[in-house]
Amino acid sequence: MPTSAAHPAPCVILVRPQMAVNIGMVARAMLNCGLDELRIVAPRDGWPNPGANSAAAGALRVIEEAQIYDDVAAATADCNHIFATTARVRELDIPAYPPRPLAEKIHQFPASEKSAILFGPEASGLSNDDLSYATGLVHYPVNPECTSLNLAQAVLMFAWEWWMAREQTPQQYDREEDTAPAESINIMLDRLESQLEKGQFFPIPENRDPMMGKIRNLINRAEPSEREVKILHGIITALQRSS
Amino acid sequence: MPTSAAHPAPCVILVRPQMAVNIGMVARAMLNCGLDELRIVAPRDGWPNPGANSAAAGALRVIEEAQIYDDVAAATADCNHIFATTARVRELDIPAYPPRPLAEKIHQFPASEKSAILFGPEASGLSNDDLSYATGLVHYPVNPECTSLNLAQAVLMFAWEWWMAREQTPQQYDREEDTAPAESINIMLDRLESQLEKGQFFPIPENRDPMMGKIRNLINRAEPSEREVKILHGIITALQRSS
Repeated sequence: MPTSAAHPAPCVILVRPQMAVNIGMVARAMLNCGLDELRIVAPRDGWPNPGANSAAAGALRVIEEAQIYDDVAAATADCNHIFATTARVRELDIPAYPPRPLAEKIHQFPASEKSAILFGPEASGLSNDDLSYATGLVHYPVNPECTSLNLAQAVLMFAWEWWMAREQTPQQYDREEDTAPAESINIMLDRLESQLEKGQFFPIPENRDPMMGKIRNLINRAEPSEREVKILHGIITALQRSS
Repeated sequence: MPTSAAHPAPCVILVRPQMAVNIGMVARAMLNCGLDELRIVAPRDGWPNPGANSAAAGALRVIEEAQIYDDVAAATADCNHIFATTARVRELDIPAYPPRPLAEKIHQFPASEKSAILFGPEASGLSNDDLSYATGLVHYPVNPECTSLNLAQAVLMFAWEWWMAREQTPQQYDREEDTAPAESINIMLDRLESQLEKGQFFPIPENRDPMMGKIRNLINRAEPSEREVKILHGIITALQRSS
């Protein structure tokens, strides 16, 4: 089991899940493997949902303690490391990990930080906007003949690997400072976006969101510390003074 | 993938399964991980069962090719190695393996032999009579707070371990674009530095180099592509216009 110095168990974030039975099955798979913090972004059929409770079987407390959010930004605001599950690894310029090395990596993060794993809606998966909040991707190297994973199965594969890796990984992640929480990075990016708008950085309005997604992706990939976020704020201010 | 000299993929045997949806989910979990031989002993609701087909999603062929048997003896008759899933490992004098070492062990069996994994009914698990056919047991070392596994989840945990053990899967990091050459990043950083200088970003001269070192570290850590370096140039220009 994790010692007092271990990185806490990551939270599981379901983004716009559709089927209550899947939410319940996710809770059970989580608790089977020692994960108990569930966050849900905009569940399609509302919340609470009795269907989730009955499918959760012995993991009812995970459902009862689940937190509900309006969007991915809010659900990840206090997280330092955000790993998003997607089949579209090739299209994105974000490091991707199979569940086993990812689980080992997460166990090595500092005890003071928080990590999260994002899973998208059953039918469509995570959107590009959802993915732009990720500091990394989770990629399941399954059989090419049948790559479509049930939501609870995908959660289980990660949870199982996390559970199996919990005893063997000594702490060895030696960054001097913690990665800043997502909220702090998002405030900086919001400020950057509004200043870029003033500077006519977005001549074509429909390109604005994709371009901000690229910038968010670039910054999140670097996992900046709080001090580095301050530096980025300082850069924005200084560049505006320098014209 | 297994070579011609490898032990063939084990078959999955569901003993008296109750819910058709679980049979379908089992088929999908199997095919996700490269297992395609399903045997079913005395399914409660008969066979074929449309509910299993719809839950199988992309793994319909596993359902269509499934073989039905009257009892465990018949279903395991051609198997050399029979591993039965049970939570009652302590009561039985049969060697028990967690899924990971079991998967590795199975890959080492001769190519000429056949192995099977048995899973019991949802509510009760395998009977003592069923277990008497086993050459070994499968034991899932899950969280003591929640040991009850969904049938398809139990199948998945074994199947995933079997799939992962078939070869060492290399880490996936398929970036669409190469990281920009250092020269290109440095030109951007030099430009940034001179503009920051104009914007009085470095009030204390001796802090200038260490601060630029921090910024360089942040950018290099993200391994920006050439396209992203261009975006960073655009940001510098636009911020200067926005003041």
